[in-house]
Amino acid sequence: MKIEDFSAPAAEQAAARRAAVYQTLFSRRDVRGPFRPEPVPDAVVSRLLTAAHFAPSVGFMQPWNFVLVRDPAVKRQVHAAFLRANAEAVWQFEAERRDLYQRLKLEGILEAPLNLCVTCDRDRAGPVVLGRTHNRAMDLYSTVCAVQYLWLAARAEGIGVGWVSIFHPAALRDILGLPRRIVPVAYLCLGYVRHFRDRPDLEAAGWQERLPLESLVFLDRWGEPGAAATAELRDHLRRDQQEAAAHAALLAQADWMVAPVAAARRPDDAESADCDSERRY
Amino acid sequence: MKIEDFSAPAAEQAAARRAAVYQTLFSRRDVRGPFRPEPVPDAVVSRLLTAAHFAPSVGFMQPWNFVLVRDPAVKRQVHAAFLRANAEAVWQFEAERRDLYQRLKLEGILEAPLNLCVTCDRDRAGPVVLGRTHNRAMDLYSTVCAVQYLWLAARAEGIGVGWVSIFHPAALRDILGLPRRIVPVAYLCLGYVRHFRDRPDLEAAGWQERLPLESLVFLDRWGEPGAAATAELRDHLRRDQQEAAAHAALLAQADWMVAPVAAARRPDDAESADCDSERRY
Repeated sequence: MKIEDFSAPAAEQAAARRAAVYQTLFSRRDVRGPFRPEPVPDAVVSRLLTAAHFAPSVGFMQPWNFVLVRDPAVKRQVHAAFLRANAEAVWQFEAERRDLYQRLKLEGILEAPLNLCVTCDRDRAGPVVLGRTHNRAMDLYSTVCAVQYLWLAARAEGIGVGWVSIFHPAALRDILGLPRRIVPVAYLCLGYVRHFRDRPDLEAAGWQERLPLESLVFLDRWGEPGAAATAELRDHLRRDQQEAAAHAALLAQADWMVAPVAAARRPDDAESADCDSERRY
Repeated sequence: MKIEDFSAPAAEQAAARRAAVYQTLFSRRDVRGPFRPEPVPDAVVSRLLTAAHFAPSVGFMQPWNFVLVRDPAVKRQVHAAFLRANAEAVWQFEAERRDLYQRLKLEGILEAPLNLCVTCDRDRAGPVVLGRTHNRAMDLYSTVCAVQYLWLAARAEGIGVGWVSIFHPAALRDILGLPRRIVPVAYLCLGYVRHFRDRPDLEAAGWQERLPLESLVFLDRWGEPGAAATAELRDHLRRDQQEAAAHAALLAQADWMVAPVAAARRPDDAESADCDSERRY
């Protein structure tokens, strides 16, 4: 493989940046609490929303809106809607799963200082949207990209995010006054946390194991699990999964992974010359 | 706001990590080329797939599969399917948009050394899935999260990714041999690039402008644009958007943002003590 030369400092910066990104990806959690009561400052909320706004979108449609929910009365209505839907959900599971289901904490609506509904405006760019002509769901997918952008920015800020999906969409629509064309894609609970867990709650609770990635990868055509990927790639996949899980466990213990970054922004903060123009980010 | 004390090194690490994450979020592009011809090594493909596999999923369902496409014959079939769909798409736009539409490059299927179809198996965890009971689309959304994870890991690796959505889903299904229950969520083109553009192609081409974020944010209830967010938050949002765009422009010029990180992994690479156990990530 021919790769152009590049200077060592560039390589070091690139490696450090890459490590930071993977650390953030692997240590992000779907957080249901416990949330710390401190509010998320406007300066931080703004960075999170800006991150979301720079997500990719089909036809550069930017179909999203962001309904911040801070009013305890609104949160209580949303929480009640969750309780109603969840009471229905319980009975859809078989008896032996039902007990475990009922013990799981699936939301942090009331405890989280900030709730956020991320919506998709299906009419944002008129009826014909570049890239949505043959897949009507692309605008919804774009909105999910914005959610994932915000989620990762939040992780980098030391803020936990949980996605609550157990609602009748019509209930959220009523409570938040969403017009017909607006789809509530994600209802998120946000706040500072004391720690991020080392693995997903549902894995730790024994609800579902992480699947072996090498069984999910095919080459050129759908086929029997694992049959299509090359032996070398399968070896890499097995090792990388172990290392990713080990990292997540290690990072869950690291103080600097939960330090609320907002508080670190003091005039005497050491910042490299390269970051001089990057004061806010 | 009460925030616990923490040591300066932790604050510095957190700030550096946060900056790296925002830089990656803001400088990610939807890349249609030009791609460099060098193949993406298996070691890098494995890291990208591992990143995707650590994305959040509803009920920890992990509904994704990854069909890597390297065979030129398969790529040609996919490209032909794009051309057919795109010829239909053109006529959906009004005359004055049609010329511009036809000048836009919307895919890099043949040029990209690696194509990847990310799919959603709607039956992965049986008929009842925790968190999907009241929103049937949650497994599709989870698959989009995996796409976004991979996209950001790729950006950190110096690899461009483009999402091609102008296909009849049935065409992709036929070419790749996907079973009925499998939804092709994203068809991606991947490869090293000489540079990442400073802003989205569709913005640069005058197809669509970036919307003012402050008009998309509401507080507690859907309302008139901008009326509901506080004045302080609106000020932050305006400034953060300008800075994010300025960063993206700056970063597009930075060598270390396009250095292929894979090539930097030599035994003599300087790595901090903290990263000792983080050799691969």
